[in-house]
Amino acid sequence: MPAKTIAIAADHAGRPLKAELVRALEGHGYRVIDLGTSGDDSVDYPDFAEALAQALEQNKAGQGVLVCGSGIGMSIAANRHRAIRAALCRDVESARLARQHNDANVLVLGGRVTPTAEARACLDAFLTTPFEGGRHARRVAKLA
Amino acid sequence: MPAKTIAIAADHAGRPLKAELVRALEGHGYRVIDLGTSGDDSVDYPDFAEALAQALEQNKAGQGVLVCGSGIGMSIAANRHRAIRAALCRDVESARLARQHNDANVLVLGGRVTPTAEARACLDAFLTTPFEGGRHARRVAKLA
Repeated sequence: MPAKTIAIAADHAGRPLKAELVRALEGHGYRVIDLGTSGDDSVDYPDFAEALAQALEQNKAGQGVLVCGSGIGMSIAANRHRAIRAALCRDVESARLARQHNDANVLVLGGRVTPTAEARACLDAFLTTPFEGGRHARRVAKLA
Repeated sequence: MPAKTIAIAADHAGRPLKAELVRALEGHGYRVIDLGTSGDDSVDYPDFAEALAQALEQNKAGQGVLVCGSGIGMSIAANRHRAIRAALCRDVESARLARQHNDANVLVLGGRVTPTAEARACLDAFLTTPFEGGRHARRVAKLA
């Protein structure tokens, strides 16, 4: 796996924001595995969360991004997997905390509730903020 | 189980908001199972998410509320359980969508990021909004 490979997936409601985030990631030099959806048809978010979780579990990517309308469905589905720590974020502070405290490996965004500029700022914080470890490492271990 | 029994739990960062929400729930006529934490000591959020998930799995309560600092840790931990659909909400619109589209049975709030009045409004929307069913039922079934 290349060091900077990231997987991304969305349902129909998250697809427009996904397209923006793919461009942002490629601009940052990431190799992006886009797992869809690619069309306008209505699809089921759990199918796309499942595909992304498998990509991380199989080490095809080190981190992931998921987008649906509110982010809630993707967050529930992805966190069914013990290897996944998926953080639904609405602002930069949440994205930073998700990395610092929760060592999140998947960023979840709501395409219908988060403006593109805010979503890109969340992505930047998610990509660049290190995990703090310490007492947080004990808590993260309990999620495994 | 009485019809209107709800379980609630928080870590130290979520405890002040939990106290407000217990009062609100009791004001709405709910019987509240408060699973802690009850002191100021630093505790691990996964332990409290686990206790709440078990209370729902054992039918001791029909719904639940979880609070930590950002809501992210509780959301990850609770959604490890297939019987739990835990929705991290920042506003009333999210709380409404969590019920309408995701049939969420646990509301997750961030005690350090959501003001008390907004949290109470999220709680009210969570308690009073019905699940829409239809295409959403097919998606929710895939989370089980």
